[in-house]
Amino acid sequence: MAGSSINFGQIARALTVVENNLEGADSLLKNLTFYNLVPIIGITGPPGAGKSTLVNAIIENLLQRGSKVAVLAIDPTSPFNFGSLLGDRIRMSSHFNHPDVFIRSIATRGSLGGLSAKTIEMADVLRASGFDHVIIETVGVGQSEVEIAGLADITFVMLVPEAGDEIQNIKSGLMEIADAFIINKADREGADLFINNLKKILQQKDGELPVFKTVASKNEGIVDVTSFIISRPEWKNHRKELLLTQKAYNIIQQKMMAVIDKKKLQQDIAKALKIDGFNLYRFISEFERSV
Amino acid sequence: MAGSSINFGQIARALTVVENNLEGADSLLKNLTFYNLVPIIGITGPPGAGKSTLVNAIIENLLQRGSKVAVLAIDPTSPFNFGSLLGDRIRMSSHFNHPDVFIRSIATRGSLGGLSAKTIEMADVLRASGFDHVIIETVGVGQSEVEIAGLADITFVMLVPEAGDEIQNIKSGLMEIADAFIINKADREGADLFINNLKKILQQKDGELPVFKTVASKNEGIVDVTSFIISRPEWKNHRKELLLTQKAYNIIQQKMMAVIDKKKLQQDIAKALKIDGFNLYRFISEFERSV
Repeated sequence: MAGSSINFGQIARALTVVENNLEGADSLLKNLTFYNLVPIIGITGPPGAGKSTLVNAIIENLLQRGSKVAVLAIDPTSPFNFGSLLGDRIRMSSHFNHPDVFIRSIATRGSLGGLSAKTIEMADVLRASGFDHVIIETVGVGQSEVEIAGLADITFVMLVPEAGDEIQNIKSGLMEIADAFIINKADREGADLFINNLKKILQQKDGELPVFKTVASKNEGIVDVTSFIISRPEWKNHRKELLLTQKAYNIIQQKMMAVIDKKKLQQDIAKALKIDGFNLYRFISEFERSV
Repeated sequence: MAGSSINFGQIARALTVVENNLEGADSLLKNLTFYNLVPIIGITGPPGAGKSTLVNAIIENLLQRGSKVAVLAIDPTSPFNFGSLLGDRIRMSSHFNHPDVFIRSIATRGSLGGLSAKTIEMADVLRASGFDHVIIETVGVGQSEVEIAGLADITFVMLVPEAGDEIQNIKSGLMEIADAFIINKADREGADLFINNLKKILQQKDGELPVFKTVASKNEGIVDVTSFIISRPEWKNHRKELLLTQKAYNIIQQKMMAVIDKKKLQQDIAKALKIDGFNLYRFISEFERSV
């Protein structure tokens, strides 16, 4: 595990530079050096799955094993996402003063696809900063859990045992993004039935994905998860290429769109609307010529 | 309402051309003529809100009023979205043979932001095809309900009366996208309390948004919704500009990213990985020079 202590202030500033695309962001990113393969661990789950409690417990256990851990907590503010995400964050703050844990939150509306590019860049800053593990956690509401799979080297999908028969309807997309499942609140009634049903479906569809049973609030089952993280299977090269391709694509998109001045776009549209027979597609052709 | 009958085969082909960006898509879009302001009606709601039943009932009522209706049903395949979306679609098929209803489904993974550009274009084809109303419906799971507000002239957000006190936590984002709320399954116990709480919050936060009570399965309350659609308030010009700016931005993004060959990107990354000291950001700089 990394020896010397990490300069948290410097990392925080680097993240701010990258997040806001301030002067120096480009050269900062181009000069990142990745001494070893620091894995990005993605953890996602539906609201109410106890995700922050679990992440807390995982951090605790990784610290006990001598790891230095960085956490990027993504807050996608979905209108349908009731409940207090902020409350979750505060629960994680018990680690804020530990010298080997760095936590940063990003609030996103993510409506224009800029989310993942920034997240990729910030995660890469953390990977190159001397941590042993970078955890990205996000509540799974729609796109975010697909995006996390495009960022992470290992993606854990959390579920809670509920409505045992609904597991039959589990979307294959969930299998595609998961490298492992964590069934939290596994002391609930019906948990074993739920897990058995999940395993049956996994066998039919996707071979052998690990399924972990946890009760994060009681610190049960966490050691198995962190052992899996530490002994993680070697990346398959194809997977690594796909992941990097996706990352590159998102970053290129963000860079290309940076030339579009949305204020000017809106002003030009306001002007064009005053002329009869407005057609959006003819307008776009003309606007593109002006860029 | 529109007089002559609509050539569904021609529309279906035009949609396919646009959806797949086939030869002629660009000139087809540039030559669309919008005879009158055909409104795009967005309807979104969480899984299980009875959305398709409601859309069904709205179509039925608009038909009775002599409208010609086009529906674009968006299937965002979110991994966390349990339950059968396909089943919902099938329920809507009772209208498939009606000469004044055109229904098209789009399945999307939407992970790269291409969704809304295609949807905008397809909705515009429908708006220019002689329909009186274009309905876009999507299940609200994360991004999709934000995207629908970027497409629609009127956005209905559906909710069902549940957990009366949770309404306190309603995200302001939901207010931002909604032009009106529809509380479906309003014959449930506690519905009136739920609606009163919602109205209180709306008054505090956002003035007067209409709230409709429906029981779509019994066809109750539907007439009020369609009356609102037909007598819809005039667009505010600022809102219209914002909407068009967002649409233009999404389409420009799609066009700009079309120059990126993802296969080549992946091949180049595979090659670059074989050299020591791979840095994604230096790679991207070099790749961009080759485009």
